[in-house]
Amino acid sequence: METKTNRIQKDLETLAAFTSTPGQGVTRSSYSKEDQMAKAYLISEMQKLNLTVYEDGFGTVFGRKEGTLKDAPSVMFGSHYDSVVNGGAFDGAAGTVAAIEVMRVLTENNFRNDYPLEIIAMNAEEGATFGPSTGVSNSRAMMGTMTEEELKTVKNRFGQTKLEAMAEYGLVPDLEAAKRDPKTIKNFIELHVEQGPVLDRENIEVGLIKYLAGIGRYKIRFYGATADSTAPMTNRKDALVGAAYFINAFDAKIKALGSSVTGCVGRLDIVPNSNQFVPEYVEGKIEIRTFTKEIVESVNFNELILSILNEVEENYQLKTELEEIKRINYPNPTGPSIMNADNVKKMEAICNQLGYSHSIINNGTGHDSMIMTDFVDTNMIYVPSKNGGVSHCPEEWTDYEDIKKGADVLLHLVMELSKQE
Amino acid sequence: METKTNRIQKDLETLAAFTSTPGQGVTRSSYSKEDQMAKAYLISEMQKLNLTVYEDGFGTVFGRKEGTLKDAPSVMFGSHYDSVVNGGAFDGAAGTVAAIEVMRVLTENNFRNDYPLEIIAMNAEEGATFGPSTGVSNSRAMMGTMTEEELKTVKNRFGQTKLEAMAEYGLVPDLEAAKRDPKTIKNFIELHVEQGPVLDRENIEVGLIKYLAGIGRYKIRFYGATADSTAPMTNRKDALVGAAYFINAFDAKIKALGSSVTGCVGRLDIVPNSNQFVPEYVEGKIEIRTFTKEIVESVNFNELILSILNEVEENYQLKTELEEIKRINYPNPTGPSIMNADNVKKMEAICNQLGYSHSIINNGTGHDSMIMTDFVDTNMIYVPSKNGGVSHCPEEWTDYEDIKKGADVLLHLVMELSKQE
Repeated sequence: METKTNRIQKDLETLAAFTSTPGQGVTRSSYSKEDQMAKAYLISEMQKLNLTVYEDGFGTVFGRKEGTLKDAPSVMFGSHYDSVVNGGAFDGAAGTVAAIEVMRVLTENNFRNDYPLEIIAMNAEEGATFGPSTGVSNSRAMMGTMTEEELKTVKNRFGQTKLEAMAEYGLVPDLEAAKRDPKTIKNFIELHVEQGPVLDRENIEVGLIKYLAGIGRYKIRFYGATADSTAPMTNRKDALVGAAYFINAFDAKIKALGSSVTGCVGRLDIVPNSNQFVPEYVEGKIEIRTFTKEIVESVNFNELILSILNEVEENYQLKTELEEIKRINYPNPTGPSIMNADNVKKMEAICNQLGYSHSIINNGTGHDSMIMTDFVDTNMIYVPSKNGGVSHCPEEWTDYEDIKKGADVLLHLVMELSKQE
Repeated sequence: METKTNRIQKDLETLAAFTSTPGQGVTRSSYSKEDQMAKAYLISEMQKLNLTVYEDGFGTVFGRKEGTLKDAPSVMFGSHYDSVVNGGAFDGAAGTVAAIEVMRVLTENNFRNDYPLEIIAMNAEEGATFGPSTGVSNSRAMMGTMTEEELKTVKNRFGQTKLEAMAEYGLVPDLEAAKRDPKTIKNFIELHVEQGPVLDRENIEVGLIKYLAGIGRYKIRFYGATADSTAPMTNRKDALVGAAYFINAFDAKIKALGSSVTGCVGRLDIVPNSNQFVPEYVEGKIEIRTFTKEIVESVNFNELILSILNEVEENYQLKTELEEIKRINYPNPTGPSIMNADNVKKMEAICNQLGYSHSIINNGTGHDSMIMTDFVDTNMIYVPSKNGGVSHCPEEWTDYEDIKKGADVLLHLVMELSKQE
């Protein structure tokens, strides 16, 4: 059994036509007219396969095929089909289309699944639509971490709240009803374009993810005092000297924690940033990435940062400040999203069997899968992004043949996982 | 004997009328039509006093009054009368006018000087006119440090070289002829507006300068390697971590040198300056200020900086680079310009006698006096700048009454210095 490139291409080209910016990439914002048209197309394709098509209380579309087991948890696979403004035709749409194609092949071949199979098509993954930290909405609604508060406050580029945009779209969300018991989901599997250059550069066909690194983001602020370049050294409150101390000490502390965490101060904003004046104020931005749950459980990063800031205050007569950048769409901001390791091995075996080159890629931006890992055995499959790995722009490109290969891996993994062992 | 406010005001208002930007501050660029008009006015005022008026080979105007001593060195006083584009009416013009007013008072009172007296009126002080490091031209020509090379290469905002602008102005410079034996100058005294907020803020009438701090400027560059925020710590080449090490080590080394030098990294430019990436490249700007000749003679600042950069290269796997920003108008860029200390005491006594409040101010931008200190006993008098000390803009302002007070100090110092002891 294998998926068909031409059907994947047709689906993606059809979805790409639903854009509010023809000729300037794909713009298929969540809760827009284009979203409506895409959703109608996806539902009609699912109905052709005699799936039970339904929506949950958050407008997420499911196409379900029962199995031989009654009241068993589902093998769920799919992705999102919304895009950023002037985005590309692939992104999450590739994974949504791959899921439908997998179901087509299974149906055509009269595949008998024991566990129920469910395609999932989500429409509010892009954080850009309603501002930072507002993305991966459907998975959050499904896992019960979306809030009424968010729906009423975050706004899109037209000034509409999520709730208002949903209403115009014809949707009255019911967060209670949207909440799904994680026990009803056996596996969650998402195919997505890499959105990075690695697979294409190294000429590898399939990327498998062991974890998506956790992200801790912080702002640190150093308040000194402005002074002319002739001001005596003894009285100075040089904010940059304090920030420099922090940068070195933080680097040393993170290095001492070993290979399961990285971190650095990647950005500084200095006032006045002139050679003629003692720096009065510095704001730094820290990014911590974590690769194991153990490191997050054993290290309190807030305290680690604060302890260095305290040293700066003592040594350099500066006031300092720490701000943690909380992101509401991350269940545990600093912790990594760990994929199911057994299934990674299964997929490696599938790739070897199919003759597809593969490697592990652990980088990545936010995905609905990231939300799911805390509740359900989750896995991701990456397919190569061309043009240097660019994404969220009209130049985003993945070869249809490459999506087909990723879909084949998805197909065989779904077949394995849906059979009673 | 005392100077007269109304005459100072009339002279300054007359000069201010010679501007190419009426209503938008004073624009009296060197070698412009407005420069010609100002020069003609100054010469006519000097001629009214029966001075011997002459120009040197660089177009500098002198108004000389012989004394009782033959072949004796002159007491020279004055300033520059050119301005920046959309500058103010005071700046150097205040000092030029004060010098003429002092000579008027001496003439009216039939003062008998032993040493010759010379007003000096210079016209190419502003570095902005021909670009950085091209100012204080007349003092450099007089002291023999101006070069033909500079005249042929530096250009004004109209694309003219200095030589071309001078030719249009009717001047063929003769650097050999312009060169004056420093032994023929007994003293050089310049009154100038403070161009800073101190006198006005502290309600002090006269500022006296002990030294103008030396300036050493450097760029330091740190070449690392770009990497994603998940890149292993062990392989990183974080340019900002290297720069941070430098900033702390440099701060410590400068502090250890004591109170006669200050220095800091006041500016950083970081690439890409994003929390999501390891900093790939950092350029820093250092400014060192020195207050004694001894510190400049005992410390090699280039070597001090290079030694820290070498430590960075060894510790952080980075390439580094040092660039010294040389300024051609500074005889010894890093060294301070030390004023004659006896004359500072004489002026303090004069202020006390006249009932003028006074204090020492050692900050300051570049002045022709800075060039002169290396060759001639030099002194400066500052008068208060209003409006927060702004200068080189239409809001530049000094009260005429304050210029009169500074001119009185100049008058009495000139009287003392021109008498044989």
